[in-house]
Amino acid sequence: MKEPVSESSTMYSASIIGASGYSGAELTRLLLQHPNIELQELYAFSQTGKHVSELYAALSCDKVYQPYNGETESDLYFLALPHGEALRLVPALVDAGKTVIDLSGDFRLKCPLEHEQFYKQVKSPGSVMTYGMSELFSEEIIKAKAISNPGCFATSIILGVAPLFRGNKSSVKVRAINCTSTSGISGAGRSSKTELSFSEMSENIRAYKVGTHQHIPEIMQALGSSSTRPSFDFTFTPMIGSLVRGIYSILNVQLESPVDGDCIKELYRNFYQDAPFVRVRDNMTEVRHVAHTNFCDVHIAYAAPGGSLVIITAIDNLLKGAAGQAIQNMNLMLGLPETTGLSF
Amino acid sequence: MKEPVSESSTMYSASIIGASGYSGAELTRLLLQHPNIELQELYAFSQTGKHVSELYAALSCDKVYQPYNGETESDLYFLALPHGEALRLVPALVDAGKTVIDLSGDFRLKCPLEHEQFYKQVKSPGSVMTYGMSELFSEEIIKAKAISNPGCFATSIILGVAPLFRGNKSSVKVRAINCTSTSGISGAGRSSKTELSFSEMSENIRAYKVGTHQHIPEIMQALGSSSTRPSFDFTFTPMIGSLVRGIYSILNVQLESPVDGDCIKELYRNFYQDAPFVRVRDNMTEVRHVAHTNFCDVHIAYAAPGGSLVIITAIDNLLKGAAGQAIQNMNLMLGLPETTGLSF
Amino acid sequence: MKEPVSESSTMYSASIIGASGYSGAELTRLLLQHPNIELQELYAFSQTGKHVSELYAALSCDKVYQPYNGETESDLYFLALPHGEALRLVPALVDAGKTVIDLSGDFRLKCPLEHEQFYKQVKSPGSVMTYGMSELFSEEIIKAKAISNPGCFATSIILGVAPLFRGNKSSVKVRAINCTSTSGISGAGRSSKTELSFSEMSENIRAYKVGTHQHIPEIMQALGSSSTRPSFDFTFTPMIGSLVRGIYSILNVQLESPVDGDCIKELYRNFYQDAPFVRVRDNMTEVRHVAHTNFCDVHIAYAAPGGSLVIITAIDNLLKGAAGQAIQNMNLMLGLPETTGLSF
Amino acid sequence: MKEPVSESSTMYSASIIGASGYSGAELTRLLLQHPNIELQELYAFSQTGKHVSELYAALSCDKVYQPYNGETESDLYFLALPHGEALRLVPALVDAGKTVIDLSGDFRLKCPLEHEQFYKQVKSPGSVMTYGMSELFSEEIIKAKAISNPGCFATSIILGVAPLFRGNKSSVKVRAINCTSTSGISGAGRSSKTELSFSEMSENIRAYKVGTHQHIPEIMQALGSSSTRPSFDFTFTPMIGSLVRGIYSILNVQLESPVDGDCIKELYRNFYQDAPFVRVRDNMTEVRHVAHTNFCDVHIAYAAPGGSLVIITAIDNLLKGAAGQAIQNMNLMLGLPETTGLSF
Repeated sequence: MKEPVSESSTMYSASIIGASGYSGAELTRLLLQHPNIELQELYAFSQTGKHVSELYAALSCDKVYQPYNGETESDLYFLALPHGEALRLVPALVDAGKTVIDLSGDFRLKCPLEHEQFYKQVKSPGSVMTYGMSELFSEEIIKAKAISNPGCFATSIILGVAPLFRGNKSSVKVRAINCTSTSGISGAGRSSKTELSFSEMSENIRAYKVGTHQHIPEIMQALGSSSTRPSFDFTFTPMIGSLVRGIYSILNVQLESPVDGDCIKELYRNFYQDAPFVRVRDNMTEVRHVAHTNFCDVHIAYAAPGGSLVIITAIDNLLKGAAGQAIQNMNLMLGLPETTGLSF
Repeated sequence: MKEPVSESSTMYSASIIGASGYSGAELTRLLLQHPNIELQELYAFSQTGKHVSELYAALSCDKVYQPYNGETESDLYFLALPHGEALRLVPALVDAGKTVIDLSGDFRLKCPLEHEQFYKQVKSPGSVMTYGMSELFSEEIIKAKAISNPGCFATSIILGVAPLFRGNKSSVKVRAINCTSTSGISGAGRSSKTELSFSEMSENIRAYKVGTHQHIPEIMQALGSSSTRPSFDFTFTPMIGSLVRGIYSILNVQLESPVDGDCIKELYRNFYQDAPFVRVRDNMTEVRHVAHTNFCDVHIAYAAPGGSLVIITAIDNLLKGAAGQAIQNMNLMLGLPETTGLSF
Repeated sequence: MKEPVSESSTMYSASIIGASGYSGAELTRLLLQHPNIELQELYAFSQTGKHVSELYAALSCDKVYQPYNGETESDLYFLALPHGEALRLVPALVDAGKTVIDLSGDFRLKCPLEHEQFYKQVKSPGSVMTYGMSELFSEEIIKAKAISNPGCFATSIILGVAPLFRGNKSSVKVRAINCTSTSGISGAGRSSKTELSFSEMSENIRAYKVGTHQHIPEIMQALGSSSTRPSFDFTFTPMIGSLVRGIYSILNVQLESPVDGDCIKELYRNFYQDAPFVRVRDNMTEVRHVAHTNFCDVHIAYAAPGGSLVIITAIDNLLKGAAGQAIQNMNLMLGLPETTGLSF
Repeated sequence: MKEPVSESSTMYSASIIGASGYSGAELTRLLLQHPNIELQELYAFSQTGKHVSELYAALSCDKVYQPYNGETESDLYFLALPHGEALRLVPALVDAGKTVIDLSGDFRLKCPLEHEQFYKQVKSPGSVMTYGMSELFSEEIIKAKAISNPGCFATSIILGVAPLFRGNKSSVKVRAINCTSTSGISGAGRSSKTELSFSEMSENIRAYKVGTHQHIPEIMQALGSSSTRPSFDFTFTPMIGSLVRGIYSILNVQLESPVDGDCIKELYRNFYQDAPFVRVRDNMTEVRHVAHTNFCDVHIAYAAPGGSLVIITAIDNLLKGAAGQAIQNMNLMLGLPETTGLSF
């Protein structure tokens, strides 16, 4: 699709804190191209003094990474830091009246106990920001000054089952979800772990954190439940495979009572009819259909008479699962068309 | 492990019908090295006149593919043909008193209706051979003259849940299994389909035949149930990913009542204590742990208080999922140590 | 870089003949986003009736492929057909006064005998169009109505040595070039050949057409020489490896007399100082630096006292090596900034 | 091929110092299967206390890594250590009368100055062992007690041109060789470098150490020349690509005078007629033809009238390029058939 002619020619300045990781690099790329943004500073403590093009030559960007010094000159701040670090930096940015979008898990969970259990870190009860799942919470996002951007697995799973929980089809009730998601290895970040080397991961698949992944409470919360008092059974098996980008989620859903497959498809189409980046597809989806895009593809692959569903979703973990969704949220917050700068 | 010193120096002659596909090539490789086998003829209609080394240079084998002409000179015959073709050839080989191992799905299902539904092909009620899942049916296999070798997905799934069905732990009862399996692309055979080209499948994942795959009735049958009258809910989502070899299966099991995780592990260890190729592992399994081996690795990854289990298995689809298991069955049938020729 | 604000708001209509291959799909994507282009028809005989999104879901394009019927309603026509087919279609388009960019090899070679030898096809002596190597022939391109877009290997090689032949450094004279280029498998087109399947090409490298590739005379011609009367020794070994996109060329150059490495670097920098898409880099280049971009990276890796040079270039074969360069040429022909629609 | 029935039933004990890297793991696998070897100790300082199966589950080996303490109980010692460490350990092993095979570069170069230049390390003039290129120096190897095993790139290059230098064809004289070799990433060792992570190397190619690689003097020396006083021009460009195993070398050779292509082929066939692991092939070779084997495939791809040759070789870098060749040398030293334990 061709970029919409921007209704607004207002320009905003933006800086990125934690700019040298894969999500930070994608943010850099998207902000450099965004018609309403002037990219200012790129902060990355560990890469201080290096040019962006040394790490990401494809970006052809001359800016130099520097350590964040507390400045608040930009209109917007994106934080793409390891978990735990944004908790410390965000309050000052919010106090200075800045628009903030945090890509970490620091501000996602309302319940401090859940946060402590899954992130091994104590945080104060008030440390929550608007949850930036653009398709579900756009009304809150439009009004917000600070957004917590969803996790990558969480995005692929929540968008895959949200219509069952939030669609206006009172007869649908979920009893259990078993979810298996395969992520590209870029999801583990720009890493120097032996276990993520090419020699170890080529032609390989590995599950990890089965039943203990930190996106579990995030998913439950977004679906109106919680991991401590679940209203439905939920198991989640994350995996990494031999690919760089993408998340492919198989959602095995057990409903309380049988529902016709066509009704489910209708429910999904209605639910996402105004969502420019969610495509409910009749055909099987694949990772390559969404790689390098901000789309989330959803396919109802199986609906058994007994109420068993298999729903399959695909996203690019670095775009719809991170930087792309962050820009989508920014567009909503700035009153721009939702797709601005995301039509590639 | 070092090859066991063969108790028997008896030599048998063997030929392969359908030798030019990936399973056929693995059979060729294994039989060339097997201390008790003299490999005779390699039949492959579509490659008639070509040397093995033209298709599989790594084998360094000078034999020439030829069309099968009905000869019955060898002691053993392996059939690695597309589904439907073995049905026609096997009866004559059995009548001639030959030892037969068929790697197709033609003789796996007892119920002709299930066969017709899943293979789109009519077969006579008697067309069933001993099901060659070495770890479950060795007593029958030892006595058999003709074996139907299990499917690749089926092997990875059946071995992953068999102890819950066949172990002597009366308290365990399965209510539902949701299975998601990722296969290497070699599982689709030596193919010229555009959708299996490197350009389409690199950095990709794709599900297919969700809920309709022909291994579903095979799995149900091996677990003492059937797809037409299931005693537990079963959904199966097969996928292919960006790898050549391997099957990685995530088995979400819902038990009727809670069982302690350690008891499950104990149950599995006991069940497989005499199985040289099944390894019940404490650590996470990965595809690379089993690639180019005949092992099936099993890991109990999650056991929730409510009776939810996540069991993960890994095999090499061309070895334990096809040619390796065929040799394992042959060893059992010939009275040789089960691991002969499979210790690499 | 951010897209330049277009000096021109003129809109042109464009159609693609041969739109369903990989180059055609990249053209589709680029033209959909181009601010001065209205994409009209997508012609692809073999995919007639299919929606673009069925083959290339990432494009999210609803247009339907159809057979080309000879219409001449668009302002521009891109041809991305198998070699030999454009020869038949281009004359009528040129006669109708259309702007034509042909991505095949049909119109590249001036010498009919060379064409016949390397393309196994007779063509009339006049069947030559302006050679669209944007960095070398922009003056001719700006004036041309019909362009023959360079081959992918040829682009990576010509740009890597052109300064030695065409730079104003009279002392440099080339005696021999040995070139080894590895291409991504997408260079073989959207194919159903067994030898290009994932199972055959994963973890593989294969050379082909050593010394006989059709880009040899194209390269010689662009460097002011010819394959029949070569003014320097030239050998070319093309390879495909386990990647989808990219060409990585190692150019071993033997000069007639010693030249200082810094002088060579200076020569290259001067030669490409006004070329927005050629980057002469101090550091080693890699395929990932140029993948999904229109850049050609050039690195002088080695300069021995005796006059031996190793020059390394990297391009994305589908962009700078095909569709991207075609758009670059179109921009030149339409009087638009050279980078319009190519800044991603 | 089937394993030759060993003429000798003598058993030897062997230990590996530096057993936890990729070459060490391949040695472990090969020695575990070798009919004349009892594998004793596995030394690996950095992995002390870990079981082999924790790092290499496919090996199914219970041995525990431990630090080397100077013991000399085994008959044979293999050293697979980082460059520089064997220099320190080998003398004591040799003094104790042990058979030693060192896989590092420490003892390859006769000239201490070359060693210092390329390995950045001083060594005493006497620190040279028999160079274990089995096909060229078997007479010396058979008599040796200590062997320096060739480098991986060096193996693929030396075997590709040796007949031109050492064959009895007086008319052939080499003027120049430009060599471009692509290695699988396992050649960089079991590594935790970011630049070798899957996310950085998938779909990538990168050259390195152009003209400065430490195998350059090793190659020159084996061909009867030297890097300091070269008798022919030699440039070498090593690369890594998106594969784990394999080296694919393109050898551009310029002869002093024209030679017929068939004569070259004949020269090669004669030269390697008794070499069980070198295959001079009429058809194009590929990495997959030799992966997981000890073969070196050689193909004369191009022979121009002017005396230009393109010779292509392929090996598995961990087998023929390291552990496999080490076992081949061991067989020669022990008087066993050269192929013992290497026929898979």
